[in-house]
Amino acid sequence: MILRGFEPRTVPPDLARAARFDVEEFHTDYCAVLDAGHIEDWPQFFTDDAVFRITGRENADAAMPVGLVYCEGMGMLRDRAFAIAKTAMFAPRYLLHYVANTRILGIDDGIISAQSNYLVLQTLVDEKTTIHQAGRYFDRFVRTGGRLLIKERHCVYDTLLIDNSLVLPV
Amino acid sequence: MILRGFEPRTVPPDLARAARFDVEEFHTDYCAVLDAGHIEDWPQFFTDDAVFRITGRENADAAMPVGLVYCEGMGMLRDRAFAIAKTAMFAPRYLLHYVANTRILGIDDGIISAQSNYLVLQTLVDEKTTIHQAGRYFDRFVRTGGRLLIKERHCVYDTLLIDNSLVLPV
Amino acid sequence: MILRGFEPRTVPPDLARAARFDVEEFHTDYCAVLDAGHIEDWPQFFTDDAVFRITGRENADAAMPVGLVYCEGMGMLRDRAFAIAKTAMFAPRYLLHYVANTRILGIDDGIISAQSNYLVLQTLVDEKTTIHQAGRYFDRFVRTGGRLLIKERHCVYDTLLIDNSLVLPV
Repeated sequence: MILRGFEPRTVPPDLARAARFDVEEFHTDYCAVLDAGHIEDWPQFFTDDAVFRITGRENADAAMPVGLVYCEGMGMLRDRAFAIAKTAMFAPRYLLHYVANTRILGIDDGIISAQSNYLVLQTLVDEKTTIHQAGRYFDRFVRTGGRLLIKERHCVYDTLLIDNSLVLPV
Repeated sequence: MILRGFEPRTVPPDLARAARFDVEEFHTDYCAVLDAGHIEDWPQFFTDDAVFRITGRENADAAMPVGLVYCEGMGMLRDRAFAIAKTAMFAPRYLLHYVANTRILGIDDGIISAQSNYLVLQTLVDEKTTIHQAGRYFDRFVRTGGRLLIKERHCVYDTLLIDNSLVLPV
Repeated sequence: MILRGFEPRTVPPDLARAARFDVEEFHTDYCAVLDAGHIEDWPQFFTDDAVFRITGRENADAAMPVGLVYCEGMGMLRDRAFAIAKTAMFAPRYLLHYVANTRILGIDDGIISAQSNYLVLQTLVDEKTTIHQAGRYFDRFVRTGGRLLIKERHCVYDTLLIDNSLVLPV
């Protein structure tokens, strides 16, 4: 699927490659925080006015704006991080993120648009490791003080049967 | 497993790295087309005389040439793409490709030989995301007009129990 | 989780990136040997005094030093490789390694510390492909004769229910 507004545009190959490496390293740092369970550090990867959304592919294909998780702005991101860190609405679980196939879709006025495939595996106590969520990140990044920050992240998952831990960011 | 004809040879490290980045970006564009369901665009990644094959590891280990899918030349590639796009022999499903461990095996007369591990996840309506096919690409690429094209792709899968959607390219 | 002694430290971005590419290519070569079943070649990726360990996340979180597999020095590595190659304590299976999210944690006195997520899929005869082990590599590499060698590898897996093939290196 191609998210509306994220159609690929022409980018000079050397710029696209340099941006790809930057985005890959961003993903790695971001996922390491989530895999470590340091949810309270998660908002630091976003701009103050960032949009973060998790939505199913059917929703995204139909251009329905809202999904199962929707945060707009640092306040909502921090609220969500706090709620997850301080409540225990779900069984303890280990998560592992794998990001592959990062693709630069455009670079305009310093904003990098990119698409990547993510796979989140989860392991509950005394259970086998299973596929928690498989989907695509559609991102817009800005560069601030030498590092990338997310201005928009749309996590569009294929996995339509998701257990109640979906409230976790991906 | 090592496919006959794809034994690793010595490549100067800087050339191998540059080729790796090119091949990784090729995989990403190729898989994005398949993940989006744009099967009609799939043949554009191949040369006119390309060979495309999907075969099981046991077949490949035994050097049996043919597999479950075998296309030789643009006509057969377009036929297959058309057949899949225009018929509905299988239930609708979402696919996600993850490519990792891309390795340059040789560069000879401008032909890049490479090996990569692929994982294709599939999600059927109201079902969980499952492993559809796990395997290795063994590829030969040529550079035409600044971009890579597949001259040979052998998809050697480990997954011996594959459902009837295997007719899909990977 | 963050393994003790593997806390991320500041590395100049260009050095970190160059090291990342080296480590990625190391992983690819290493995993290709294991995926091909060439276990007898596995020790050649280690220094003579290397430590190799596979341990569960709960063990690692509790800073318990030993795990399910522990090798110290080339003799023990070769012993293990020989034992696996020459005995058949488990059913034949195909393995596929996927490494993602490689992250440089530090470079000190030429020693590169890195973290990566790995996923090992396995396929037994006439069975579906399943998740064999999902975890993180915590590595220290040295450069010898132009190539990286493992001085320390800690494989910390999330998958607590592992079948008896865990004796295989990852």
